Amino acid sequence: MTLDSARLAPMANAIRALSMDAVQAANSGHPGMPMGMADVATVLWSEFLSFDPADPHWPDRDRFVLSAGHGSMLIYSLLHLSGYASPTIGDIRKFRQLGSPCAGHPENFLIDGVESTTGPLGQGLAMAVGMAIAERHLNAEFSDDLVDHKTWVIAGDGCLMEGINHEAIGLAGHLKLGRLNVLWDDNRITIDGATDLSTSEDVEARYRAAGWHVVRCDGHDFADIRRALSEAQDDARPSLVACRTIIGKGAPNKQGTSATHGAALGPDEVAAAREELGWKAAPFEIPADILSDWRSLGESGKSAHSDWQARLDASPHKAEFTRRMAGDLPAGYDAGKVFADWLGEDKKVATRKASEMALDVLTPLVPEMVGGSADLTGSNNTKTKATTPLTAEDYSGRYVYYGIREFGMAAAMNGMALHGGVIPYGGTFLIFSDYCRNAVRLSALQQQRVIYVFTHDSIGLGEDGPTHQPVEQVMSLRLIPNLNVFRPCDIIETAECWNLALQDKDTPSVLALSRQNLPQLRHDGEMLSAKGAYRLRSAKAARQVVLIATGSEVELACNVADVLEGQGIGTDVVSMPAMELFDAQSVGYKTELLPEDALKVSIEAGATLGWERYTGSDGIQIGLDRFGASAPAEALFDKFGFTVDAIVPKILNRIKS
Amino acid sequence: MTLDSARLAPMANAIRALSMDAVQAANSGHPGMPMGMADVATVLWSEFLSFDPADPHWPDRDRFVLSAGHGSMLIYSLLHLSGYASPTIGDIRKFRQLGSPCAGHPENFLIDGVESTTGPLGQGLAMAVGMAIAERHLNAEFSDDLVDHKTWVIAGDGCLMEGINHEAIGLAGHLKLGRLNVLWDDNRITIDGATDLSTSEDVEARYRAAGWHVVRCDGHDFADIRRALSEAQDDARPSLVACRTIIGKGAPNKQGTSATHGAALGPDEVAAAREELGWKAAPFEIPADILSDWRSLGESGKSAHSDWQARLDASPHKAEFTRRMAGDLPAGYDAGKVFADWLGEDKKVATRKASEMALDVLTPLVPEMVGGSADLTGSNNTKTKATTPLTAEDYSGRYVYYGIREFGMAAAMNGMALHGGVIPYGGTFLIFSDYCRNAVRLSALQQQRVIYVFTHDSIGLGEDGPTHQPVEQVMSLRLIPNLNVFRPCDIIETAECWNLALQDKDTPSVLALSRQNLPQLRHDGEMLSAKGAYRLRSAKAARQVVLIATGSEVELACNVADVLEGQGIGTDVVSMPAMELFDAQSVGYKTELLPEDALKVSIEAGATLGWERYTGSDGIQIGLDRFGASAPAEALFDKFGFTVDAIVPKILNRIKS
Repeated sequence: MTLDSARLAPMANAIRALSMDAVQAANSGHPGMPMGMADVATVLWSEFLSFDPADPHWPDRDRFVLSAGHGSMLIYSLLHLSGYASPTIGDIRKFRQLGSPCAGHPENFLIDGVESTTGPLGQGLAMAVGMAIAERHLNAEFSDDLVDHKTWVIAGDGCLMEGINHEAIGLAGHLKLGRLNVLWDDNRITIDGATDLSTSEDVEARYRAAGWHVVRCDGHDFADIRRALSEAQDDARPSLVACRTIIGKGAPNKQGTSATHGAALGPDEVAAAREELGWKAAPFEIPADILSDWRSLGESGKSAHSDWQARLDASPHKAEFTRRMAGDLPAGYDAGKVFADWLGEDKKVATRKASEMALDVLTPLVPEMVGGSADLTGSNNTKTKATTPLTAEDYSGRYVYYGIREFGMAAAMNGMALHGGVIPYGGTFLIFSDYCRNAVRLSALQQQRVIYVFTHDSIGLGEDGPTHQPVEQVMSLRLIPNLNVFRPCDIIETAECWNLALQDKDTPSVLALSRQNLPQLRHDGEMLSAKGAYRLRSAKAARQVVLIATGSEVELACNVADVLEGQGIGTDVVSMPAMELFDAQSVGYKTELLPEDALKVSIEAGATLGWERYTGSDGIQIGLDRFGASAPAEALFDKFGFTVDAIVPKILNRIKS
Repeated sequence: MTLDSARLAPMANAIRALSMDAVQAANSGHPGMPMGMADVATVLWSEFLSFDPADPHWPDRDRFVLSAGHGSMLIYSLLHLSGYASPTIGDIRKFRQLGSPCAGHPENFLIDGVESTTGPLGQGLAMAVGMAIAERHLNAEFSDDLVDHKTWVIAGDGCLMEGINHEAIGLAGHLKLGRLNVLWDDNRITIDGATDLSTSEDVEARYRAAGWHVVRCDGHDFADIRRALSEAQDDARPSLVACRTIIGKGAPNKQGTSATHGAALGPDEVAAAREELGWKAAPFEIPADILSDWRSLGESGKSAHSDWQARLDASPHKAEFTRRMAGDLPAGYDAGKVFADWLGEDKKVATRKASEMALDVLTPLVPEMVGGSADLTGSNNTKTKATTPLTAEDYSGRYVYYGIREFGMAAAMNGMALHGGVIPYGGTFLIFSDYCRNAVRLSALQQQRVIYVFTHDSIGLGEDGPTHQPVEQVMSLRLIPNLNVFRPCDIIETAECWNLALQDKDTPSVLALSRQNLPQLRHDGEMLSAKGAYRLRSAKAARQVVLIATGSEVELACNVADVLEGQGIGTDVVSMPAMELFDAQSVGYKTELLPEDALKVSIEAGATLGWERYTGSDGIQIGLDRFGASAPAEALFDKFGFTVDAIVPKILNRIKS
């Protein structure tokens, strides 16, 4: 609804008051951004954003992403003022305190109305690109009746300077995501001071170069903001709205300076700001008339929501749409049955190829899977017949050519998963997990089902050499909480790991896959990968040794076991495709698999630090604690000691000593 | 020198022939780029690049960076043809084989003429920005007589699409690095196919928006290339030369397609290309007249080099310039003496503040230190009085406001270190090591003295919450080979770690520093951090327990020890500021410090995986294997069990059981 400026101004000041009071109470936080963008946000929420405070999960709501997440008091204020159940004023009073959902940065898992966790700069906007892709894709699948909403972003200079911004806006421009609108808080201040300390860029020209529509406004003139947002909304291209603002607007002595960015204003300046704004209410109190104006905003969304509900109820797609948005797999989904048939075969393929074979089964069964690759489609084996290209001309496609944009891809996948209705997976070389690592971390923190297909997972990639050979990547990904890192050893485990990844709604997965061919080692057993580790081969002679291996080194472990058994040394081979899942097993299972009285030897073509957890300190860790080299894979495995001849003597020495 | 096209064409074809033959012999590699850029590279090397093949380390040579490192046969061809000692034709014959310096991607540590390791896309260009910064800085310090060279880059579409490109060119444009010229291999092909599969960007407009000069040429027309490179060389801004090329040019059936990008052409196509190019020589043979033209190129560089040598010999700066370029610290450098005085004090400061205090001592002593921060100067405490801003108006400054560009900063620091004459250090929050992780890896792989000041190193950062709280970062950085990760516990260790970082020429360092104040725990001992770990406190009662801690948790370990000692349980406290340095100690030292017969307990506010190496599997690992939360630091340490009350019972239980 359109309110006149006389009513909008106090509404915006309510944001300012809550923000400065909450930061002051915490004596920690960022008042400058919420105070500077209060006017813009008020116009956006009152006249443009479609939302229903009574149902933060309404699938066709507009998405609002506060990419400049440090300004979290802006979104807490907006949600509270407009009548969402969370956060309460009590939550806001406890801003940044233990247990309050009003965390320092907004967290999607703490407050329903927070669409995504933001704070790591640039990623909010990049996630919004993913949301906008998901919206267009689902629109193409389910029609305007069910999916027809916009994605709005508030971003700061930090979001725009980060490299990921280039990747994100390039992708958005290429895919012509016209329903994506970014409101740039153009306050010309960063933490270190004026933006011209570090940048001379013509931001608007850059956005235009990426295919964006750009419009500018005075971020403190309601009419001008309204005009700019209208233009943005109407343009067929994604839009950047450059909102010229004053950081900390309202704090008379500090506004316009970096002093308002990341610290409480102090009691004197808060008092001066109250004076300046004519704000007479006590801290955390909102005058009834202002609150009433805020609360009225949800009405139009409520009615749009109920119209939408009527369309959904009448839609032949209702069940399917509802299932997808709930994140449930299709009724009767049982890929495991197909995969079980594979046990009877004997296929020697790279696990990246096995992954493609699994995807050939899964993508027709699970229509919400949307794949892609950062320009390594043929190497990551991520494309299947069922996944035709998703393009600006055909959003119904299910395969995104992400370009050479690993970080942008990962963040977009987060956004797609957060949007709902889509299960994203995407590929690059494992080494380039380094390029998107913080987005993988945000998949985990946000508890999103995003599946990373990271191929060429060791020195087994061969000739490309040390820049392309992961050494520390597998172990370092295992360190990220709530992330399942799968390193399957053959076609069977690869299928099992895909199946596990798909079925875990709240945990992202990494599939670390080989470039080189690996023999099929499993011919029986059902979903053994679910326990994270299992006995692949049992000792024939009295067990003295347990070999623990992952991925391409499981074959090697079997060969080592053969030689040891030939010498009368009983040797188990444990395959451990997922350390995290194994850690979650019972002590009994773990002890049974890795018994005290055996010499435990880990074999993995990567960093050894961490393997002592499983081998014990008296075990042996076979690995690679240096950078690789450029040569054919076999020569490298030989050079770095991943051979039966190199490993067996190490074990014999230890047993005999 | 200017050669006519009739002589340039066969010179370029020599690159094509060597490239396709080497890739064919290896049956692995990337022929498309060297064949496509052969004409441009030939003009660059024959008429613009200043180099002396007899001395690849001549300090005033132009720097040439092959950012599109997969096209490594281009640089191997150029170096060999123009008469560098390495690579030999024998090396090229063994392209991508074990032991050949002609690795899959160019490695600075294998071939003297390779200025930087490239392959991870976008980083070569970003390192070149650092080289160009170092050049201008040293020029300002030592005058045109000694430092007056250009930086030339060949980059592909991948380098330009990566996010880091935005950061790198933004920094270069802002600093007006006019001697930086980037030749863009505009072949409109990526691995997945045509560039328009994934991008619609107007690249030239984007570069102009960043303050660059842009010129275009036909990459197969020698005169046009010459014109464009001249314009680039003459313009005061950094230049992008868009070279329209045909990938795989010369391979008649495959050129212009992604089929030439990353695989051998195959014998038939190689034969067809020989026909097309009129190349009659056998594989790996270069006709004498063509080789002679190539070998003549070094002459002008040789004479420039000898003029330069005369200027150096006459310069009052000779000793200082030579010292700096050799990477030696100043004669009489002994910061340790100053730091030793600190033992007598009792200062409680955050280690980030201690780092600033150390820098206050070091930066005046070591004039080649050039600092900076990715827009967190006041938080990283990286700026000192001695380091005034390095700006486009004053390149003699020693502090770079890198902006919100972590990856660009890290890559620029790599370039500065590779250039020589500068020791770069730069700061961001530890969590954002994720954003620049692969550049940290390249510091390590390239064996460069780059010092990362990563502050706010745990949940101790408090209210900003889980997006900003490192949990897995310290341990995951420790996994990178040839990287020293320091986590000092107090002002003394911080100074020692800085001292160690500065003195290690071939290994980059990370300093993980606290936001919160930490008491001074050390009052004696000299450079104890050099051993990586040492006994900070010895048990008074009979030793039963050894506590191993790092950084902010060493204080906690001391408090735990006090309580245990109070109960008659002898407890050592081992501080371990650098795991890597400890690993390099003798078995005797290690066993003496961490004896078999004691219960060993690690305490670190981060991921526990890996600590079993030091505690043994029967020890206890106190850490944090989940994401943090938003609250004041003390509340978080309490919530997550980093208190005496939480830890002591765990130890008592284990001792009694």
